[in-house]
Amino acid sequence: MIKITLPDGSVKEFEKGTTSLQVAKSISEGLAKKVLAAEINGQVWDATRSINEDAHLKLLTWDDAQAKSTFWHSTAHLMAEAVESLFPGVKFWVGPPIEKGFYYDMDLGDRKMTEDDLEKLEKKMSELSKQNNAYIRKEISKADAVKYFTDKGDEYKLDLLGNLNDGEITFYTQGEFTDLCRGPHIPSTGAIKAFKLTSVAGAYWKGDEKNKQLTRVYGVSFPAQKELDEYLLMLEEAKKRDHRKLGKELGIYTMNDDVGQGLILWMPNGTVIIEELEKLAKETEYQAGYKRVVTPHIAKENLYLTSGHLPYYADSMYPPMEMDGTKYYLRAMNCPHHHKVFDAEQKSYKDMPYRIAEYGTCYRYEQSGELFGLMRVRCLHMNDAHIYCSKEQFAQEFRAVNDMYLKYFKIFGIEKYVMRLSLHDPEKLGQKYVNEPELWLETETLVRNVLIESGIPFIEVKGEGAFYGPKIDVQIWSAIGREFTLATNQVDFAQPRSFNLTFTNKDNEPEIPLIIHRAPLGTHERFIGFLLEHYAGKFPAWLAPLQVKILPISDKFMDYANSILQKLKNADIRVEIDERNEKIGKKIRDTEVMKVPYMLVVGEKEMNENLVSVRRQGKGDVGAKNIEDFISEISSEIKERREA
Amino acid sequence: MIKITLPDGSVKEFEKGTTSLQVAKSISEGLAKKVLAAEINGQVWDATRSINEDAHLKLLTWDDAQAKSTFWHSTAHLMAEAVESLFPGVKFWVGPPIEKGFYYDMDLGDRKMTEDDLEKLEKKMSELSKQNNAYIRKEISKADAVKYFTDKGDEYKLDLLGNLNDGEITFYTQGEFTDLCRGPHIPSTGAIKAFKLTSVAGAYWKGDEKNKQLTRVYGVSFPAQKELDEYLLMLEEAKKRDHRKLGKELGIYTMNDDVGQGLILWMPNGTVIIEELEKLAKETEYQAGYKRVVTPHIAKENLYLTSGHLPYYADSMYPPMEMDGTKYYLRAMNCPHHHKVFDAEQKSYKDMPYRIAEYGTCYRYEQSGELFGLMRVRCLHMNDAHIYCSKEQFAQEFRAVNDMYLKYFKIFGIEKYVMRLSLHDPEKLGQKYVNEPELWLETETLVRNVLIESGIPFIEVKGEGAFYGPKIDVQIWSAIGREFTLATNQVDFAQPRSFNLTFTNKDNEPEIPLIIHRAPLGTHERFIGFLLEHYAGKFPAWLAPLQVKILPISDKFMDYANSILQKLKNADIRVEIDERNEKIGKKIRDTEVMKVPYMLVVGEKEMNENLVSVRRQGKGDVGAKNIEDFISEISSEIKERREA
Repeated sequence: MIKITLPDGSVKEFEKGTTSLQVAKSISEGLAKKVLAAEINGQVWDATRSINEDAHLKLLTWDDAQAKSTFWHSTAHLMAEAVESLFPGVKFWVGPPIEKGFYYDMDLGDRKMTEDDLEKLEKKMSELSKQNNAYIRKEISKADAVKYFTDKGDEYKLDLLGNLNDGEITFYTQGEFTDLCRGPHIPSTGAIKAFKLTSVAGAYWKGDEKNKQLTRVYGVSFPAQKELDEYLLMLEEAKKRDHRKLGKELGIYTMNDDVGQGLILWMPNGTVIIEELEKLAKETEYQAGYKRVVTPHIAKENLYLTSGHLPYYADSMYPPMEMDGTKYYLRAMNCPHHHKVFDAEQKSYKDMPYRIAEYGTCYRYEQSGELFGLMRVRCLHMNDAHIYCSKEQFAQEFRAVNDMYLKYFKIFGIEKYVMRLSLHDPEKLGQKYVNEPELWLETETLVRNVLIESGIPFIEVKGEGAFYGPKIDVQIWSAIGREFTLATNQVDFAQPRSFNLTFTNKDNEPEIPLIIHRAPLGTHERFIGFLLEHYAGKFPAWLAPLQVKILPISDKFMDYANSILQKLKNADIRVEIDERNEKIGKKIRDTEVMKVPYMLVVGEKEMNENLVSVRRQGKGDVGAKNIEDFISEISSEIKERREA
Repeated sequence: MIKITLPDGSVKEFEKGTTSLQVAKSISEGLAKKVLAAEINGQVWDATRSINEDAHLKLLTWDDAQAKSTFWHSTAHLMAEAVESLFPGVKFWVGPPIEKGFYYDMDLGDRKMTEDDLEKLEKKMSELSKQNNAYIRKEISKADAVKYFTDKGDEYKLDLLGNLNDGEITFYTQGEFTDLCRGPHIPSTGAIKAFKLTSVAGAYWKGDEKNKQLTRVYGVSFPAQKELDEYLLMLEEAKKRDHRKLGKELGIYTMNDDVGQGLILWMPNGTVIIEELEKLAKETEYQAGYKRVVTPHIAKENLYLTSGHLPYYADSMYPPMEMDGTKYYLRAMNCPHHHKVFDAEQKSYKDMPYRIAEYGTCYRYEQSGELFGLMRVRCLHMNDAHIYCSKEQFAQEFRAVNDMYLKYFKIFGIEKYVMRLSLHDPEKLGQKYVNEPELWLETETLVRNVLIESGIPFIEVKGEGAFYGPKIDVQIWSAIGREFTLATNQVDFAQPRSFNLTFTNKDNEPEIPLIIHRAPLGTHERFIGFLLEHYAGKFPAWLAPLQVKILPISDKFMDYANSILQKLKNADIRVEIDERNEKIGKKIRDTEVMKVPYMLVVGEKEMNENLVSVRRQGKGDVGAKNIEDFISEISSEIKERREA
């Protein structure tokens, strides 16, 4: 008999060789039907794999990220089986799960994969799913594995085998299809009830453009049709809300080859949004007792050697500028500069906590293949700040930072969010993590306790902390349910040591502060990219580049329109007149396209009665109003940063 | 007889060999007394030198910059004569005029120049000045000159002679002293009525630290004692107002060796000033119809090849970052990025003028020896904007820019200013200047006419334009009369061509715009450096980092102090409480040092009667006030950006 410990701490005895699926059945048949994989002593296993020793077990269902990956990877095998039946002789490279779904790279020889083929493949996959074939794991010797793929004539799998040794090679078989694969997989193909092959693309073998181009087929799958339908609907909506499309249409940003890839040029409309976000941040930070600083975007190599970013982080930085024997780097983060500001004047406990904020610009040399609109760029404007505090002050400061996140979520109507607490891995102390085991445990506990006390939803992930301390990644969901990683919130006990930062405590002794790195609004780039999708470009009035457009019905009313323009300008409202000689219908349509929150139509009646006819974006005509009433309404909407 | 043409165009006849001084005497004895030198056909000559051909003549007096240089250089010779009498055997290197005064480098052998020696030298110089010795110019052959300095044993002058040829060598003699010198000089030593030897320093021969260190004596001189007294008083005041000293004391900025020389870290107090200046600029520019953009600080080499900054300007730029075969440069100017914003969307005449502004950060690799506090730095935050307009719109746009300067001058109490119109030099077209002779003349005329029409004081300087068009440097004087070069204002007809910028005009044809580059508030670095001196750190309330400090007489009044703090914070006033357990006298003194505009003293009486006792920086106690009245007064002072 072996002992199985469940996540709630309960221990049950089972026959040696039992499977996670059997454990699940012993709890409930309903549960067993949902089990896709299991975590055994921290590793993800097939639910059908025998357990031969005492183990900690966590059953994984669709709600677990690891189960989703397993599900999608199993769908890749299902697709491969279908491909093999339609394209005999196809050779396969790799077919991993991705953030949402999976792909498989394959060599079709002279054949091409068409849209029609995708439909045929989906049909075939349906058949194979209905067969509900089990995914069968088999350990195999290297010699046998090599023989198998030599006979099959698949040089790609042989290439993979070249890097593997006896004892670490497994095959997985479902139905007629066998693949070299380390697994794990779901129990059987029947669970894959809904799927869609979304696209075909070319992909160089091993990502190297000197190699042959393979065919990559992307897909996604779900345990139920309803979920697939929702997902496809969301994709369609996301396409309409694509920040790159809206970014261009609304004059938010542009890029230029002579400036460089991933370097955003913020156009006038985007700059209005930037300035409104900075205003919000400055007000909020001022209220929360932050001071502001402005620091340069470059520094000498030595600063980053001290901080530990060099050589560790060098790959993500632009190469150095070397002059007069000195190397200057574009900064990839603001913290070292801020530490120097902290250190410029002697600090005492009366100065603590010392909070300094800056919308700091950083440069990161992301690989060109990784660049993506505003989401992955090389120049980032970060809502950065650093809080230097004593250990006693930490919990309160950290809670205040979390409160600031929640305050922002409310303003932007972000209803779903989760904080992802990334911890260190004790086995990698001294390599990936600063070798301070006690400080790690202490700060992790501090952070965890604050999260628990604040009732903020969070998950813990081992081995993903920053190298100087535990990290919280904040994940948010847009109005259409797409997930974005917004910002990080980090505790740092290492940099104050490497920079020799101290303050004089009440006992007149030098004391090393803790540092909180935080950026609740993330970067302008990513946050505005998110907001474009979240609002579908229909920004609330306070964020809208143009808040009001005045539409005179004809030139006759230009004087009246101008008198209204002046009144609105005096009230600090961003306003323009559509001076074109066009029909009012066209003026309205063109203004709709630009998603301006308010249109004021003015003609004979309005002029004579000293009114404006108000149209609200998305609502249409909301009636005629006295201009003073309109100004007072829109002003309070803007001031309170309300959504309509 | 020869014909002498005077600046007013009048022509007079004189004997061949007449001197400028004689010409002056023919006009008036009073004028002749003031003449220090003369400009003959564009070259500065001794006023006592014979004129042998027809010539254009301009008499130069103390008011002319060239006359000042001549006067100071002549004082250097006077000092050298005094040095030779006190330090026989001294050898001289060079003794040029500088921005304010002169120096002379000399080799004293084993002897040292002390403060006492300076006094002795000044005494001797007085004697020599009273002798009123003429400065006598003598052309001399190289052989004779070499013999003279070989006999004298002065290897430094022999070194200078090595680079000179027969026909270009002159000696100047006054009294007992003869020097190798190309001149010119003032007529005689009697005019040097007031002087001061200000300091002694070491200076490596030819600026090379491998060479011998010479002794450099600095001095300054004036035609009258009153002017010297005023100058020394100003120097003393400038020392108290030194922006580096105040910058540190008031927590405005710092620098750090690990970050790099000339890279300013703006501390919280300096950042408040930056943000107030930006707010002023944004408001002003919004009212003037500018839009704002945000652009990255780097670009690919190609952008600067297009703009012409490379290779022309490469010495002033940081070296490139090279990666993946591409060179990226830190930008030294914002214009090319802005041109790309202009070009990102097709423009029509309806979009013109198109005005885009950005407080753009630029990087310039100034030589480390040139770096000086905030005045000469390597990272600059520039109040930049570019106006793209048609030729017809130019005059109005350019006038509006000048009006903006005047508006700012008024706000900052800048009473003395001059615009320096720098023109091209027709002989250097195609080298230093874009080879477009007609466009040069046309735009120069446009600019000159606007300046004349606006009645703004300006001077014209040939051969100092930017390479793409005429340039206006704006010079301002601080409250203590020191001159600063604040900003430039440039017309550009070349870059629109090199960037292929066009707009569609009313005839539906592509038309090339003109560009105005402008930066009325210059850079934060230089402008805040100027303001520190101008205000002696006593900023007006709207700019002051801390606007109000509340000083409770004892802890008993902390609650009351806090209630006042909250009211002021709600009114967006920057306020703190002095919470220290100190006597009120000390609290007041410490707050004075930080030059906080307002102190509110609160004690028993104030609490009971719901008042605050107000002290105004520089004025002392101005009486007790109701807090609401105080808030309303200071708020309007801040809003109107009044100086107290």
